[in-house]
Amino acid sequence: MKVIEYPERKQWDELLKRPVMETEGLFDTVRGIIAKVRSEGDKAVMAYEKMFDKVELETLGVTEAEMDEAEALVPEDLKNAISLAKENIATFHASQQFVGKKIETRPGVICWQQAVGIEKVGLYIPGGTAPLFSTVLMLAVPAKIAGCREIILCTPPGRDGKVHPAVLYAARMAGITRVFKVGGVQAIASMAYGTESIPKVYKIFGPGNQYVTASKQLVSLRDVAIDMPAGPSEVEVLADETANPAFVAADLLSQAEHGVDSQAILITTSADLLQAVRREVERQLELLPRKEIAARSLENSKLIVVESMSQAIEMTNDYAPEHLIIETKDYESVASQVTNAGSVFLGAYSPESAGDYASGTNHTLPTNGYARAYSGVNLDSFTKKITFQEIVPEGLRTIGPAIETMAANEHLDAHKRAVTVRLNEIGR
Amino acid sequence: MKVIEYPERKQWDELLKRPVMETEGLFDTVRGIIAKVRSEGDKAVMAYEKMFDKVELETLGVTEAEMDEAEALVPEDLKNAISLAKENIATFHASQQFVGKKIETRPGVICWQQAVGIEKVGLYIPGGTAPLFSTVLMLAVPAKIAGCREIILCTPPGRDGKVHPAVLYAARMAGITRVFKVGGVQAIASMAYGTESIPKVYKIFGPGNQYVTASKQLVSLRDVAIDMPAGPSEVEVLADETANPAFVAADLLSQAEHGVDSQAILITTSADLLQAVRREVERQLELLPRKEIAARSLENSKLIVVESMSQAIEMTNDYAPEHLIIETKDYESVASQVTNAGSVFLGAYSPESAGDYASGTNHTLPTNGYARAYSGVNLDSFTKKITFQEIVPEGLRTIGPAIETMAANEHLDAHKRAVTVRLNEIGR
Repeated sequence: MKVIEYPERKQWDELLKRPVMETEGLFDTVRGIIAKVRSEGDKAVMAYEKMFDKVELETLGVTEAEMDEAEALVPEDLKNAISLAKENIATFHASQQFVGKKIETRPGVICWQQAVGIEKVGLYIPGGTAPLFSTVLMLAVPAKIAGCREIILCTPPGRDGKVHPAVLYAARMAGITRVFKVGGVQAIASMAYGTESIPKVYKIFGPGNQYVTASKQLVSLRDVAIDMPAGPSEVEVLADETANPAFVAADLLSQAEHGVDSQAILITTSADLLQAVRREVERQLELLPRKEIAARSLENSKLIVVESMSQAIEMTNDYAPEHLIIETKDYESVASQVTNAGSVFLGAYSPESAGDYASGTNHTLPTNGYARAYSGVNLDSFTKKITFQEIVPEGLRTIGPAIETMAANEHLDAHKRAVTVRLNEIGR
Repeated sequence: MKVIEYPERKQWDELLKRPVMETEGLFDTVRGIIAKVRSEGDKAVMAYEKMFDKVELETLGVTEAEMDEAEALVPEDLKNAISLAKENIATFHASQQFVGKKIETRPGVICWQQAVGIEKVGLYIPGGTAPLFSTVLMLAVPAKIAGCREIILCTPPGRDGKVHPAVLYAARMAGITRVFKVGGVQAIASMAYGTESIPKVYKIFGPGNQYVTASKQLVSLRDVAIDMPAGPSEVEVLADETANPAFVAADLLSQAEHGVDSQAILITTSADLLQAVRREVERQLELLPRKEIAARSLENSKLIVVESMSQAIEMTNDYAPEHLIIETKDYESVASQVTNAGSVFLGAYSPESAGDYASGTNHTLPTNGYARAYSGVNLDSFTKKITFQEIVPEGLRTIGPAIETMAANEHLDAHKRAVTVRLNEIGR
């Protein structure tokens, strides 16, 4: 970890720089795969599964029998944990339901919004070493609450042609009935355009490697919406002298173990805390099974001491972390000054892993500084708001002349006439 | 206009097809301009203004004196109209303010969301024949309400080096103080990366031609958020035998005059109404100054009669129109079944132009079927929601073991340890 002491304002940009994730350069590669899936459907998907996932599939859909088998394989303690997490995620996301208000902007001019679930959504769950059943819950539970009618899930099978049981179990618990064994670019292409087996959806969610990200971006240019742009995961701990160095170190390490490109940053007002955290990180690192990944990731990571809490907060908002843990005496006051962050964890007993799994908040969050403009996944992500307006004659008499004037000044006479023909009938 | 009578279900896809807008093919062209603005700043912007807008500028910022001059030039009736529209837009968008609720998902586990205005936003207003001061209001008024701290506006100057007075006046009325004379790709590049004069922003809003759209898409791949993908404007009128053919025709024409690629569609259950609307369109077309544009646009447009209201609604949701006008006897019941649309206008006295200018709803809406997954611009568009969680020892004792189990099953031991070190301290 790099230690940076009292940096000057002009050094901040350099200091807070993230590793650049270049997806545009992959467009040509992924474009070819997408085109082939689009034109040849299941046949192409199966060929790519053979090529990339080393598996020969006869059908893409997971069967009811496979779902039953998975359920039998998941240990009881994990089932209970998934159940607790699912309930909390459901409670928090259900509380986000939007109820539109009817607003009379003028007498007889009534406007309102209504949130409607996106009819068809596709969830992508990556394969790899860790079975991300938690991400299944984070995407499927709000999709159900939003009222999405068709929710499908794509995830790459292992070489044995099977999906990890915990992923299938989480899907079933969340109410998803259609799971397909397909990963990578071919999964994104299938959901964007549909194949014989896999239905086309209107919005695609979920994490993935740089090829998945590139293909999501490419299909989103015209054909389907996506949750958000993605980048490597990151955490910032903002701490003062009251923080517990062992907790802070554990939080930094829990980010570092994600992957070698993860970033973990400490910003503190206490030089003593910084040194204590440093020692704790070294001590705890030795205890981790994934210590090699964590050690490499720590090379990107920084321990920064600044002069004041207000400077620490300013630097935090500049960085716009995906996850922000605030371990300070007056963490509520600090939190109220946070303007750029994905998800914020307050106090000594709110580790990031609580939000990753079970507090109820979503763990699909804006990385790479996107928190400056994007929200994390939440109930809104699975709905769209339609606006409605109902104008009665009294209302049109009030606002009609203004519309006529504005339309005429924008040289849009037919717009003006649509009001005039009505005012002529009802009388001005 | 093409008349289609009682089409079969399998013909719908073909029938509802839109003209394809291909922006990816423009990426190479716009990439060069963006790179030059990024590396050379104002100097490049001025060179492109000379090349594309045929104007030599010495400074890019509109001065306070120019704002004063514009205000003096806007006629009183237009000022009053802008004022009425601005008030209604403000009333409706202010009503959309989000208030997060604190939710206790388990005792001692408190989660909430907070909406925070995006700190820096850039608004783009195209040039061309019509001065789109209405779009200034539609973007700037909600940006102000959302609490965006820095709101800038870029718009191309005329050959005289000036911006249309109504655009400047609307900007001033909406509280925007920083307006820059720059259009097209160079405007988008300036806002995405910043120049000496023009500050970098976090999100870019506003309509534009295919080059503007392509450059918004390109910069959104990594560097800045955008409002939504854009395409040609469109309206659908859904009507039964009770509709007024003169009103329906006026509404179709007000869409058609936008541009030759605009689409106007009538879906009706009444063959008689269809014929009456057809005659009215022909009659009213002759009265329009922009009748040549409207006539060409009408070539893309369709009058469709279907067998039942339920079929009409199904077809509407399939099409997912940007604007939907419902002129039927029981329009409230019909509206309750609409699942895909941008903005919906109910009854005989709610023309689209009301929403375009002054009812209070936003006119920046999802075209090209994007209404299946996207909302139109609304207050949410200018904010992001940050999630917060505060867990006290009691709460961590409740959810901690589930987190440990889930983390262990995802092979993320440091995630588990971040809970364990805390539970060890407070006791399980």
